[in-house]
Amino acid sequence: MTKNRYWRLDKHPDGNEFESALSLQEEELQPLAEGEIRIRVDWLSMDAGTRMWMSPRTDGYQPPLPLGTKMIGLCLGRVCESRDPRFAEGDLVRGFGQWADFAVAVPDVAGLEKLDDGISDLRQHFGALGMNAWTAYVGVREIAAVRPGEWLAVSAAAGATGSLACQIGRNIGAKVVGIAGGPEKCRYLREDLGVDLAIDYRSEDVAARLAGVESGINAYFDNVGGPLLDALLPNMAHYGRVAVCGMVSNYDNDAPMPGPARFDQVLMRRLRIEGFFIPDFLERGAEFMPQLRAWMGEGRLVMRFEETAGLENVLEAYRGMLTGRNIGKAIVRL
Amino acid sequence: MTKNRYWRLDKHPDGNEFESALSLQEEELQPLAEGEIRIRVDWLSMDAGTRMWMSPRTDGYQPPLPLGTKMIGLCLGRVCESRDPRFAEGDLVRGFGQWADFAVAVPDVAGLEKLDDGISDLRQHFGALGMNAWTAYVGVREIAAVRPGEWLAVSAAAGATGSLACQIGRNIGAKVVGIAGGPEKCRYLREDLGVDLAIDYRSEDVAARLAGVESGINAYFDNVGGPLLDALLPNMAHYGRVAVCGMVSNYDNDAPMPGPARFDQVLMRRLRIEGFFIPDFLERGAEFMPQLRAWMGEGRLVMRFEETAGLENVLEAYRGMLTGRNIGKAIVRL
Repeated sequence: MTKNRYWRLDKHPDGNEFESALSLQEEELQPLAEGEIRIRVDWLSMDAGTRMWMSPRTDGYQPPLPLGTKMIGLCLGRVCESRDPRFAEGDLVRGFGQWADFAVAVPDVAGLEKLDDGISDLRQHFGALGMNAWTAYVGVREIAAVRPGEWLAVSAAAGATGSLACQIGRNIGAKVVGIAGGPEKCRYLREDLGVDLAIDYRSEDVAARLAGVESGINAYFDNVGGPLLDALLPNMAHYGRVAVCGMVSNYDNDAPMPGPARFDQVLMRRLRIEGFFIPDFLERGAEFMPQLRAWMGEGRLVMRFEETAGLENVLEAYRGMLTGRNIGKAIVRL
Repeated sequence: MTKNRYWRLDKHPDGNEFESALSLQEEELQPLAEGEIRIRVDWLSMDAGTRMWMSPRTDGYQPPLPLGTKMIGLCLGRVCESRDPRFAEGDLVRGFGQWADFAVAVPDVAGLEKLDDGISDLRQHFGALGMNAWTAYVGVREIAAVRPGEWLAVSAAAGATGSLACQIGRNIGAKVVGIAGGPEKCRYLREDLGVDLAIDYRSEDVAARLAGVESGINAYFDNVGGPLLDALLPNMAHYGRVAVCGMVSNYDNDAPMPGPARFDQVLMRRLRIEGFFIPDFLERGAEFMPQLRAWMGEGRLVMRFEETAGLENVLEAYRGMLTGRNIGKAIVRL
């Protein structure tokens, strides 16, 4: 019998320490039920939103994962067994599976998709063609409704979604402010992504730097919430838009964070703040792909990967992603 | 020479005590400059937003009024002298003038408009046909984008804008929750305005009552900000919209209030929060009027007035409006 290793959620994490909440387990592969697919996982995507599945909070955008079950995550790999006629052995697929050597998924529940096997770096299905890219695309173009010539600010700008949001902003003719932590990330933003202004929130006064943009910030792609949003709101242009993509700073709290200190600016500057959640847009992925693919082909939408090897090292990779240790996209190669 | 009495802003108010910041003065009428209009004021509109003109804060939606100048306010009256060829003596007009017997205005700066002199109660130009009505209309239909069958919640629901927002919600087929302070206002909401649910925030647990709306609240017309918004956010339906019309609870603070405690719900419920400011929509007034006029004619858009007599009593009327003492629209008849 083939063995399958997987990460099990044993308890809810306490604060920002999640490692002891998960344990690596081993099982015999079980037979599939009708409608299920088994995937040999090649890469796991490390996503901040996954953190919410570990939480007992029921008011998040995902229901909590029952304790004692396999940890859920976004997988890229090949079908090795299928009981759904739409998928055949060998198909390259991506969808929500488990942190495991072999993931089992019901395609329609998992958002499972067959992928283009012909691109040179298959990891781009977690990159310029992945969900981070859809998130960045929807956030920049639809929620923040960025127009050419406007100023777009992006937080966690050197991260997976942020780095794509910066590039998409540039690609549609906006001027981009990237906000990230540390000189290396800021250099990456300036030199590799070509942002107009990079702000290191660890060493610089973000509000003061933003105030230097005289016309104000027209759109803010917010990946983090918290104090950065407080710095942004009073520096927004009138009729500015804030696309709330993530509140990483909030995911490991049991209680919600306080709201933005400068919420009054919503009225004073007639701002629009809108939360969005990319699974709501999954079925529209095909619509975004031609543009993403074209930009990728022109070298105008690139993703840097931080690859960790081995399922046993998932927690370290996840820690790195959550604490902003990486530039670009954190993935685990199995 | 004709005398003109006016209220002068002598200093910035300290906290919620504004009375000592203003004094009633008298002057001789001065000759008009080219392009100016003189209005014999018949009624003054008491508006919460006016409070911001008294404040030294420069980050509001209006610049502070210089100390020693006449207090600004919305006036309804007749032109008694005109140096703008578009306006003639006797014209009924409405626009931003001063808290004075005679207001002087440059029509394009003041948003001055000639009004229909043929309606039976001219005060309706401060009511069902006034700026509160435009505010309610834009907020309900465009910003909150309320659709038939949805649940619309309105705060300060027995106030001038709120009572119109409730009625407009009902008129377009929404179910309406009116939130107000005290049994008399709640009775007004239920019996006179026909809301589906009236909540007395002084004696009831607003969040618990809202939780009784099983489908969640689809749209919230927010006149007050503060704790009520905290009660609303976790009770919004997914993809709910919050139209931020006012933050009365914030106007007399020198420092901004803390933001909504449940701001996390913006992401979790994919909410849209949008501030708006009716002067931005002034030029679209004509577009809203046929509908407002039709509803008024059918008795489906009514305004109750709380009228105070005498320019010398403006401060008391203003105090009443700010502290929510009135039902409907507070005006001063000169």
